[in-house]
Formats: sequence, structure tokens, C-alpha cells
Amino acid sequence: MNKPVVVRHVEQPPADAVAALETYGVSTVHEAQGRCGLLASYMRPIYPGASIAGAAVTVSLPPGDNLMIHVAVEMCQPTNILVVAPTSPCTDGYFGELLATSLRSRGVKGLVIEAGVRDVAPLTQMKFPVWSRAVCSQGTVKATLGSVNIPITCAGALIDPGDVIVADDDGVVVVKRAAAREVAAASEQRVRKEEKTREQLARGELGLDIYGLRAKIKELGLEYR
Amino acid sequence: MNKPVVVRHVEQPPADAVAALETYGVSTVHEAQGRCGLLASYMRPIYPGASIAGAAVTVSLPPGDNLMIHVAVEMCQPTNILVVAPTSPCTDGYFGELLATSLRSRGVKGLVIEAGVRDVAPLTQMKFPVWSRAVCSQGTVKATLGSVNIPITCAGALIDPGDVIVADDDGVVVVKRAAAREVAAASEQRVRKEEKTREQLARGELGLDIYGLRAKIKELGLEYR
Amino acid sequence: MNKPVVVRHVEQPPADAVAALETYGVSTVHEAQGRCGLLASYMRPIYPGASIAGAAVTVSLPPGDNLMIHVAVEMCQPTNILVVAPTSPCTDGYFGELLATSLRSRGVKGLVIEAGVRDVAPLTQMKFPVWSRAVCSQGTVKATLGSVNIPITCAGALIDPGDVIVADDDGVVVVKRAAAREVAAASEQRVRKEEKTREQLARGELGLDIYGLRAKIKELGLEYR
Amino acid sequence: MNKPVVVRHVEQPPADAVAALETYGVSTVHEAQGRCGLLASYMRPIYPGASIAGAAVTVSLPPGDNLMIHVAVEMCQPTNILVVAPTSPCTDGYFGELLATSLRSRGVKGLVIEAGVRDVAPLTQMKFPVWSRAVCSQGTVKATLGSVNIPITCAGALIDPGDVIVADDDGVVVVKRAAAREVAAASEQRVRKEEKTREQLARGELGLDIYGLRAKIKELGLEYR
Amino acid sequence: MNKPVVVRHVEQPPADAVAALETYGVSTVHEAQGRCGLLASYMRPIYPGASIAGAAVTVSLPPGDNLMIHVAVEMCQPTNILVVAPTSPCTDGYFGELLATSLRSRGVKGLVIEAGVRDVAPLTQMKFPVWSRAVCSQGTVKATLGSVNIPITCAGALIDPGDVIVADDDGVVVVKRAAAREVAAASEQRVRKEEKTREQLARGELGLDIYGLRAKIKELGLEYR
Amino acid sequence: MNKPVVVRHVEQPPADAVAALETYGVSTVHEAQGRCGLLASYMRPIYPGASIAGAAVTVSLPPGDNLMIHVAVEMCQPTNILVVAPTSPCTDGYFGELLATSLRSRGVKGLVIEAGVRDVAPLTQMKFPVWSRAVCSQGTVKATLGSVNIPITCAGALIDPGDVIVADDDGVVVVKRAAAREVAAASEQRVRKEEKTREQLARGELGLDIYGLRAKIKELGLEYR
Repeated sequence: MNKPVVVRHVEQPPADAVAALETYGVSTVHEAQGRCGLLASYMRPIYPGASIAGAAVTVSLPPGDNLMIHVAVEMCQPTNILVVAPTSPCTDGYFGELLATSLRSRGVKGLVIEAGVRDVAPLTQMKFPVWSRAVCSQGTVKATLGSVNIPITCAGALIDPGDVIVADDDGVVVVKRAAAREVAAASEQRVRKEEKTREQLARGELGLDIYGLRAKIKELGLEYR
Repeated sequence: MNKPVVVRHVEQPPADAVAALETYGVSTVHEAQGRCGLLASYMRPIYPGASIAGAAVTVSLPPGDNLMIHVAVEMCQPTNILVVAPTSPCTDGYFGELLATSLRSRGVKGLVIEAGVRDVAPLTQMKFPVWSRAVCSQGTVKATLGSVNIPITCAGALIDPGDVIVADDDGVVVVKRAAAREVAAASEQRVRKEEKTREQLARGELGLDIYGLRAKIKELGLEYR
Repeated sequence: MNKPVVVRHVEQPPADAVAALETYGVSTVHEAQGRCGLLASYMRPIYPGASIAGAAVTVSLPPGDNLMIHVAVEMCQPTNILVVAPTSPCTDGYFGELLATSLRSRGVKGLVIEAGVRDVAPLTQMKFPVWSRAVCSQGTVKATLGSVNIPITCAGALIDPGDVIVADDDGVVVVKRAAAREVAAASEQRVRKEEKTREQLARGELGLDIYGLRAKIKELGLEYR
Repeated sequence: MNKPVVVRHVEQPPADAVAALETYGVSTVHEAQGRCGLLASYMRPIYPGASIAGAAVTVSLPPGDNLMIHVAVEMCQPTNILVVAPTSPCTDGYFGELLATSLRSRGVKGLVIEAGVRDVAPLTQMKFPVWSRAVCSQGTVKATLGSVNIPITCAGALIDPGDVIVADDDGVVVVKRAAAREVAAASEQRVRKEEKTREQLARGELGLDIYGLRAKIKELGLEYR
Repeated sequence: MNKPVVVRHVEQPPADAVAALETYGVSTVHEAQGRCGLLASYMRPIYPGASIAGAAVTVSLPPGDNLMIHVAVEMCQPTNILVVAPTSPCTDGYFGELLATSLRSRGVKGLVIEAGVRDVAPLTQMKFPVWSRAVCSQGTVKATLGSVNIPITCAGALIDPGDVIVADDDGVVVVKRAAAREVAAASEQRVRKEEKTREQLARGELGLDIYGLRAKIKELGLEYR
Repeated sequence: MNKPVVVRHVEQPPADAVAALETYGVSTVHEAQGRCGLLASYMRPIYPGASIAGAAVTVSLPPGDNLMIHVAVEMCQPTNILVVAPTSPCTDGYFGELLATSLRSRGVKGLVIEAGVRDVAPLTQMKFPVWSRAVCSQGTVKATLGSVNIPITCAGALIDPGDVIVADDDGVVVVKRAAAREVAAASEQRVRKEEKTREQLARGELGLDIYGLRAKIKELGLEYR
């Protein structure tokens, strides 16, 4: 019922939407799509400042075994992001500089892995961004199958192959492939609206007034002393 | 018995004491006041190198709801630090770039929040320091009241409004308002004493001799082989 | 049966092996010695970029009491690394700038501590590297004995005095003293082999082919759709 | 894009399959369906010995707000299991004796909640089983909407309304509605096979022989000394 | 500024209020006093079924050192509850069967400790209830002072000596001494009201109707499909 | 350097010492041997009330792979205890009812595993005691070698094959094989001494007097108010 499988063909999200989503960043995109799709906050970047978006190539694999990452590399296309989740919690270092070199040669933008990563210093130097649950030198074996490009749950979020992954210093969010354009548009709207609000706040106006909250707190019965 | 309330007037600590405390840093101040008032070590800065002190504006609010932060902004004065604690554990991103812009326009120095924060990259760029329990894009609603400027427990420490918050790369410590001058003086003493000790240690003298520990370890029966 | 003791003489590992191990880094050394000796992944550097190796001076001490660190300083020789483990979990800041000054005056290269550290900003400025479980200002007393230079368990790894500690951004690994030369040689081999693999991968060759994994996944029955 | 919604009609799994799955227990069912669908191991029963299966009524709600549980009660049918996940981590006690009384009056078998529960003693007495992430008295408000009977992610597993939940002392597993009969059959097969194996093992036969592992460990090169 | 001290005289809460609070249990009392005073949910009973209330004798002590518990025993009166918090996180077993025997001889009802406890089997047998953060055999020294009967923060809650502690399977809550009668009365009211609600719910009425939530969810815009 | 190996012959501890150690329990034995050898407090029994001692058969194995447990069964003798540690953190359910049946048929007393276990209800029913880090249904593969009867680190403690494991509701402690008789004797002494102390405490005498602590707290300068 759960046979290991590699799905070769994955429908890709529209490139313009992916490019747009990359410019908005995680928090804006997450808000713009109605606050869904966020990965758990233990997914942290290995160095600050990276900000990427790309279509997911998904990998489900056993704890302590990275055979399927090698299988997945071949499925990757330029601008993809590799998304890896073990079938049970594991902090092993599934991924390091060599696999990053391999992914980079195929144009892959980065890695999201609900497990460990190693070679943090070289990865930082080559600016290959990784969001992971842990940093850990512990290597893995190559003994057991898993699957590539099937729907997976990663850090609490459901990710289908071809979904758009957006990742920056705030964390990682997934946008369903079919909604990419719509979410990009909603993000653009949000950014424009926030620009105006930012100016108001910078001038000293209060959120209480801008968002019309004074009536609400009065109705709720807040007492000022 | 626990009615939501906003206390408008908060007695401020002496400005000279606050300024002095900022120069000593968390570990010195914590030692100088007798090792009390330290917040739990899971409170971490979102970027390294910030070091601030200021009077606390306190906020108690529900999980997943930042309405009271908006209320609190209006209560903030220049050099204040906003201190926020949810009534139960929550990692949501209650605070981001827009609220930081608002606080900055009022001269607030930074934020201490026993919850999540988002927009880490913009906050780092604008050098608005935050000490938080988590980084998380998950937004909050504005539906339920809490209180501003009441005594709160934040990361295990009791904080009254008007207490001095000192925060740097080592964490966060609270100094009771009434003790601010005394603690500043004790910190100054400690710093001077440590300068001398540092010179001795740099020359190769041992703590065992400087602190007179040889007699103690002998009395306790330490065996050298 | 467990009397506090300080062992004065510790056999040192060969200096050339230590120097070599420092150049390879944690992940390579860990692999080269057969994937043993890794400390738990919660041991993190206080700033990025440090990479050291040295012979361990070990300290076993009670929670909240750093008396034995002062005792241990006297036992340290140039190029040593101090390795500290409390007898039960503790996040207190056992160590700060003054102790670092003292260790540096003796030529010690760094600290590995399964507990807390403080004065992170000054330690970063003086480039004294520390790998710790926590950053915490909470000071310690000097009331109870422990032991120096006995075998200890630190972050899940057994460390004998005189073992080689290798630490970098990936974490910390221990190499048994007697195996230092052999592990250095195996690391060198591994590095050379990886250089060639890196070139192949950079050219676009796949790990599947380089490591001969295609036969294996076929035999295991992986299905491509 | 993520509008709060209550879906009234949920297709139910075949009653015979649900009844069968209840008899096999979590570990058998999880194995039988190919090791998928397991909720994270932090989901623990509030008392030992309960073992249930039923169709899921799913609830997605905000942290600290149980309004939607009240909405969900009305959607529950006999033999259902309520499955609740907050949109961000929360340990509040969303659920207690009164809600259990309400669910029981509708024939609901139990609760699975990735958050806190309270009234543990009365719930134990009335034998209303709950699997939760925490036990916590902290109550919740009723201020913000969420959704009922939409697909949710609970403790890392994707759960659609109408899926079969199986829960016992080992934890919680979800069986997709459409696969319920097939998984029940596979569980039955597994149980029968294990009965035979159990007898062999009880007689002193070894797994090494029963599962034919001796050839494998020889091929892998295991050395006996 | 933080001199170790033992306060001999502690004003006790009214005995009738304490007795009443014991009958209501933690969740009811916590609600009745406006949802404050709850200790963190990691405070768990060592065996199920205990339910007590009593006036707090507070102890602040160093990690790994239980000297002050011995000092505190002498300060205990019949029906008191000992409340212990280390100055930094510690899981050591500060307390076991012997100290329980000593406390019982003085009529003390139980222990609340934000640290470890040991001798769980004998404590269960003698029915001496303990709420702790951990179970751990690791013993402690008796080398360093702390304080007895000063205000402490325990598991995130502020506890003054003489406050009423209520503890059961749901956790631990503190009621301020001065509010004990008022909270007992409010708890009584709550219990009576809940009895009626329970009957309604048992009959099949819905919380949506009993609490008048239908108007609210309509106003908030919940959509039924 | 770290070749998978099974050591057939393990020197056993004296049976009388093992039997004696079983009667004293973990906390007494841990104290009697000088407070060493305790496993981390996250090792918990799957049901309360079990209390065993036996010689360790050790297993080191990969995350998510229980092949070596099957290999280890054959190495077990009556009264042994199986001790299992993965090479990196893992909560998978490596062990269940079938393996317990197999171990029981060989007279093995129980299991200590720094990972997950499943079939908790059947294991409780057959009274096969297990101390584990987690309860989890997630099964394991049988693909990769590890070692049996080599020295391992389990939950922070170093365990050699043939060491005595003592486990009860307080946790797990290891006694070195060569010290078993000595520790049993020291435990007996401790128990006798504690019996007398218990009687004194039950009569109302204070630890302050029995242990002669009054002079110490006076000398340390404790102030009574």
C-alpha cells in the first residue's frame, strides 16, 4: 500500500509566480494565503540572510538513510528546492557539501530538511542555503528505499511535489502549485498596503487608529486606569 | 478578579541608572544584584551584538492574539522596552517590522517577548533588537483583551512595569525599579574589581590563588595524583 | 568509590596528528574514524567560523558549581581544550570572560561544556571559541568538589583525558588518543577522495553513478513512474 | 483563500472495517497499511488501557480558543472521534469534563487533540479516552473562528474528515477512509501470522531463523568473536 | 541584596477556605480566580489520583543542593505544602522517602518541586503526593544556602509564603492568601453552575445553545456547507 | 576502526550481587556507588511498579533499524537485561510483544532502550518491563549492521557488557561488573542506616539535627527572621 516510488514528471508552478513569491518573503506570503502552509518554527536556516523560492522536489526516507536523496537529485530541475522528511524524527546529517555541489550543478536553489545537515561552514561559504531541524555530523547509510515526488508531511505541513517553497530568515512556507499566481497577487497587495501603513506608523500614528481598534477594545470593556 | 486593565501611569526608574546599567551588560548586572531576576535561557536575541537597557512596559495577553501590543504601544515612552508574555506557552509571531516601526517612532529601544517574532531580516536591517523564545511567521488575531502595565511573569522572572530591563547577547535580566541606582553602583564596583582580576589572569596568575581557593579544596579533601 | 581526584599527568596525543585533525574538521574526522565519538547535536558554537583541535583536559563537576574549573586551569597546557560536564543537566553559566582570559594565558585553545556559558559578546570579541549547551548569565558557586582528568561522559560521548577534541561549526567529535595518527591518515584519504568526487559532481555527474547505486535501488525494487 | 467553514456532510467509513480496526490496535494497523499515518509520539493517552477506533470529525482552530469545538460537537455522530489541531503549537486545556459529557451524549468515542486537556480525573472516572500533547488547566476563549471537517495536519499526520482514527496505549494512527477495509484485512492477516510467530518465539526459536536473517548478516559481513 | 534568609512567621490562609479549595480542584479554582496562578504544565504528579490544598512554605535553593529543604522542614506546620524552586533549571532528585517521612510527621500534605524527585515507588506506597518536573535518582549536596518563606517563582508562577496551593491530576495552581475565601466562593458558584450545564449537556443540549454561541459564529461569518 | 561485531562471551557479574542489587533499587544503589552510572531521567518505565536487576547484553544499532536486536537475542542468557542504544537519537518502536516473547523464552528480565517501544498494552499484560525514551508504533527495518556486547553509551551512561543494570520507577543505573559485590555491600549499609534515620524522622526528629546541619548553616551565615 505504501510502495517506494519515484515520480518522474511533476507539474511545475508558473515561473513568474515563483519569482514574485521569492521577493515577498515567508511572513508576507503566509499572511497573503490565509495563514496556512507554515512549517514548524524549529526549521531554521544554517546562516542568516538567505531568501529563496522554488518548486518542491519531495523526498520521504527512513531515519538515518539518505539513499533517496541521491535518487532525488536526478529528478531535480533548475530553480527547484529539495524538500526532505524522514518517516520518523531524526537529527542525522543527511546532507553536506558534496550533495550541495551536485544540486548546484543542476541549478537547485536550496534544501529544506526536517532532520540534520552537516558541512555548515563550507555550505555557508558556497552560499547554498539550507533550512533544517538540526546541525549534526552524524552520517547516514544508503540501505533502504523511500519515495521521491510523492505528497509528504514536513515539519507539520503537507507538501505536494511542484508546490512552491518560500524560505527566508523567518522560516519556511509552502504555497500550493495551483494557488501560486493568486498568492503572489495577494502578497503584492499586502506589500503595497503595508508600505502605506509603515509610513503612517513611522510618522507616529498608532495601530489603534489605523486599524480602527479603539472601538473594539471599548466594546470588549478594556479599562484604563 | 483578573479584569483586563491598562495602567496609564508608570513610575520610571532614574535615567542615569538606566544608562549606567546599559553599559555593564546582563551578566555583570545579574551578579551585582545578587543573582536574581534572570529570564530563562531560551530567550535569545534575533541578531548578535545588541545591548540595551530601559524601563519595562509590560503586556499580558492571550496565546495567538496581539491586540494588546497595539494598546501597549500608546503607553510607551522614549527609552522604554516592551516586555510581552502570553498567558500560556505560544510561539506565534506576535510582532514584526510594522510594530517595530511604530515603537521606534516613539523612541522605544527594543522588545522582550516570551513568544515568537517575525520579519527577522527587516528587524535586523533596521537594528531593532528583539529577544524572543522563537522566530515564527505565524500571525495573530486581534480578538481578546489582556492587560498593560501590570506585574507579569516573563520567562520565569517577575517583572513590574517600570522595572529596568537589561538585555544583550547573554540574555535578559530585570532590575527592580527601586534598586536601579544601587545595582548600577554595585555593577560599577564589580566591573572595577574584575578589571584588576582580568589583568592578573592575563599575566598567568591562577584563580585558585586570586580567589584563595587552595585552602578550600584542601579542606574539602581534594586528592591530587 | 567515586572520590574527587585531580590527575596531574595526562599522556598527550602526538602534536602532528592534532594539527592535522584540526585541518579536516568534525564531519570528515567523524566519518574517517568509523562514525563514533560524536557529541550530541545540542552542543553549539557561540559564534560561527571557529575550528579547533586539541587534547582534552576533562572536568566532572556538580550542577551550579564551577570550583573544579578553577582547579582544572592549573592542569592545562598549551593547545589543550577544556572539556566540562556536570554530573546532572544544568544550563548555568559556569564560564565567562575571566576564565577565558586565564585559559588563554596558558595557551588553551577553547572550551567544550555540556552546560551554559556567559559573556558571549566579549568571548566573541577575543575569539575564544566555546561549544556549549546553552548561553546563560546564571553564575555558579564554588562549594563542592568534582574531578579533573578522569574519564567523563560529555553530551553522550565518552572522553578520556588526552583524547583529541575536534570542534567546528558542525559540532564536536572526540578521537581516542591512541588512534589520533590513524584517524588523521584516514581523514586525509577521505579528503582526497572527496576532492575528486566533488569535481565529478560539479561537472554534473550523479552520486547514483559515482557510488554505483543504480544496481542497488533496482535490486531493492524501486519503481519509477 | 482559507475561509472558516463547517462541512456538514462527511462520508463515513464502513462500520465493519472500523469495528475490525479497533480490535487490532495501533501498531498492527500502522504496519498493515505500510507504516504511514502515525501521529507523533508526543500524543499520549490521559489514562492507560483505552483502545478505540472511529471516523474523524476534524477541527482546525486558533491557539487558546475552543469556539470551534462547540461548533464541531453538533457535527458529531455516534462512533465518531473528534480530532483537534490548533493552527500553531498550544498546550492550553481546550477540553474538559463538560465537553466530554456533551460528546458522550452524542455517542462520540473519544478525543485526539494536539494541545492540552483538563479535568483528567473526572475524564478518567467517566472513561472518556483522550490522546493529547499536554495536560493543562489553562482555559480558552471563544472569540475566533476556525473550521470543522476540513483536511488538517495533526501531530504531523494528514487527516481528512471521515478517515478512521485508531488509538490505544501505543499512540494514534489514521487510516484513509477509502482504505479502511483493505487495511483491516491486511491487519487480520498480520495478526494471524504473528500468532504463529509468537508461538515459535515462545518455544525458543529465534527471529534470526524465523525471519531468515542469518544469510543477510553473513552477507553484510557481521563478525562474531 | 539577595541575602539567604529564613522567615519564621508566615501568615496562614483561613483554614475553611483551604479546605473548600481542596474540594474544587485545580481547573475549577483556576477558572474561578480569573485564569491566573497556574504553574507550567510540565509539573506532573508522580502518581494519579492525589488532590490536595494547603498553605505554601516556599524554598529557593541552588541547583543540586537540598540543604534548604532540611531547613524548611522545621518551618512547616500541619496542612502546609512545601513548594521548592531551584534558582536555575535542574532535574536532580532533591527529595525522597526520608524527607517525605519527616514532612508527614509534621502533618505536611505534599510537595510541589520544579525539579526532580526520587523514591517514587515508596512515595506512592505511603501516598505522599508530589508534583515535580522530573523523576530522577541523582542526589544533591548540602553545601550552599538559599532562602525559606520568601516570594519565589515556581514553574512560571509567583508564589508567596502562605499562599494556597491547590494540586491534582490537572496540575498545580496558586491562590493568593488574601483572595482564598473569595476564590473559594467563586469556585463554589462555578461548580453549581457547571452541575446544571452538565445535566443539560448530558441530555443532548448543545454548548452552542447553552452558551448562546450561534449568534456569535453567525456574526463572525462562519460558513456552513 | 568501528567494524560491526558480536562478542559471544561476556563475563557475568556474581549472581548473588545481582540478586542483592535488585532488592535495593536504583536510588539506593546510585548513592551507594558514589553517585555515578545514572542514565538520563528521560528513560521511563512503560508501567509503574517493575523493579529488576541483571547483567547487560549491549546493542549499538542504527536509527530505525532493529536487525541487531534479533542478533542480540541469541546472545542473551537467563537473568540478563538487554540494553539498546541507537547511534543517533531515534524514537522509533524498535521492540514489541514478539521480541519480548522471544527474550522471555530465554529468561531475559527486561529491556532498557534509549529509543521507542511499542505494544505497550500487551507488554504490560505479560509484565515484561521496559525502560524507554518514548512509546511509538513506528516500526524499523532490518537492513544495516551494528554491534552486540561492545561498550556503549546509553542515555549518557557508559555501559560495558556484563555490567549490572538496576531499574525501577526511579529510572536506570549501571553498576560496573567488578564493583557489583562492593556496591551491594555499600547499598546494604545504606539501607540499614536509612532505616534508623527513617524511624527518627517519623518520630519528629529533624534532619537538621540528625545530620548535624545546624552548625553548618550558622557558619554559612543563614539569617532567621
